Amino acid sequence: MTHTTRDKQALLTRVRRIRGQVEALENALRDDAGCMAILQQVAAVRGAANGLLVRMLEDHLREHLGPDADDGARRRADVEDVAILLRRYLK
Amino acid sequence: MTHTTRDKQALLTRVRRIRGQVEALENALRDDAGCMAILQQVAAVRGAANGLLVRMLEDHLREHLGPDADDGARRRADVEDVAILLRRYLK
Amino acid sequence: MTHTTRDKQALLTRVRRIRGQVEALENALRDDAGCMAILQQVAAVRGAANGLLVRMLEDHLREHLGPDADDGARRRADVEDVAILLRRYLK
Amino acid sequence: MTHTTRDKQALLTRVRRIRGQVEALENALRDDAGCMAILQQVAAVRGAANGLLVRMLEDHLREHLGPDADDGARRRADVEDVAILLRRYLK
Repeated sequence: MTHTTRDKQALLTRVRRIRGQVEALENALRDDAGCMAILQQVAAVRGAANGLLVRMLEDHLREHLGPDADDGARRRADVEDVAILLRRYLK
Repeated sequence: MTHTTRDKQALLTRVRRIRGQVEALENALRDDAGCMAILQQVAAVRGAANGLLVRMLEDHLREHLGPDADDGARRRADVEDVAILLRRYLK
Repeated sequence: MTHTTRDKQALLTRVRRIRGQVEALENALRDDAGCMAILQQVAAVRGAANGLLVRMLEDHLREHLGPDADDGARRRADVEDVAILLRRYLK
Repeated sequence: MTHTTRDKQALLTRVRRIRGQVEALENALRDDAGCMAILQQVAAVRGAANGLLVRMLEDHLREHLGPDADDGARRRADVEDVAILLRRYLK
């Protein structure tokens, strides 16, 4: 069972919260809310996605490259996946 | 008319696209998709929110602090709003 | 007098601290220090440069786009400079 | 031999380039250069440190968590080191 399946409920709760933030952003735009309030809402969505990504990246490292990841060939592929994600994400 | 009202349709299109990405993320989690695919989807949501924030911040600077923003007292308040957003966002 | 000239001593102190961190990084590499210690030192240099940039960006906004920046044409050019910096920096 | 020792010359070249950028920033401040030129120089230092960190983080993952990292207990400690660095760096 992967970490995303094991933690499904907790992760779904966080993703649904982000969806709620995006829907609130959509409403604010539609209802002509003040532009600084809208900017702060976009920053909140970005911050929430950032926090979720850091949390899931840690879990991924622990499961796929940690103490129980005994298959060397498997780790080679997983390290490259993580490296690509980091390069894209931290550039 | 503020920049967010003037560009409402274009901004709503981008926000709805982000909502679609978050809904796809929710489905991927619920359907036990592979964890790297899920991680990449979270990074995509973050990247889209990041791009939207940069675009809106530029528009906000132009409108509220640019050539037609003649009210000095108004600019004082707007500069502080932007400074707070940048501090929170770039920390 | 621009904000960077007015705050020269405080800014020079911060820049010299960053130079010290980079020199410490250079020594750690040359002396074959542990790789995690070296990684943490690179992250420290990045964090210090990040903090300096946020501080200077705020000062720049206040001086060039704030309450005393009465020249609309001047603000037009300054807003575009800041927009380019944000785009490059936040992409 | 660790990756930082193996790649010492290449890494030292990059670190010395960053030191050169910081020294140029120091001179620009001391000589009252334009503030936007100074801001761009700080952003350049940050970008260079960012690029170095991503490169070294990838090498670190490959060496310490990749195909040849057969010691599970060692990987447990290394994964936690990387997780702490990512949390601090991506927060």
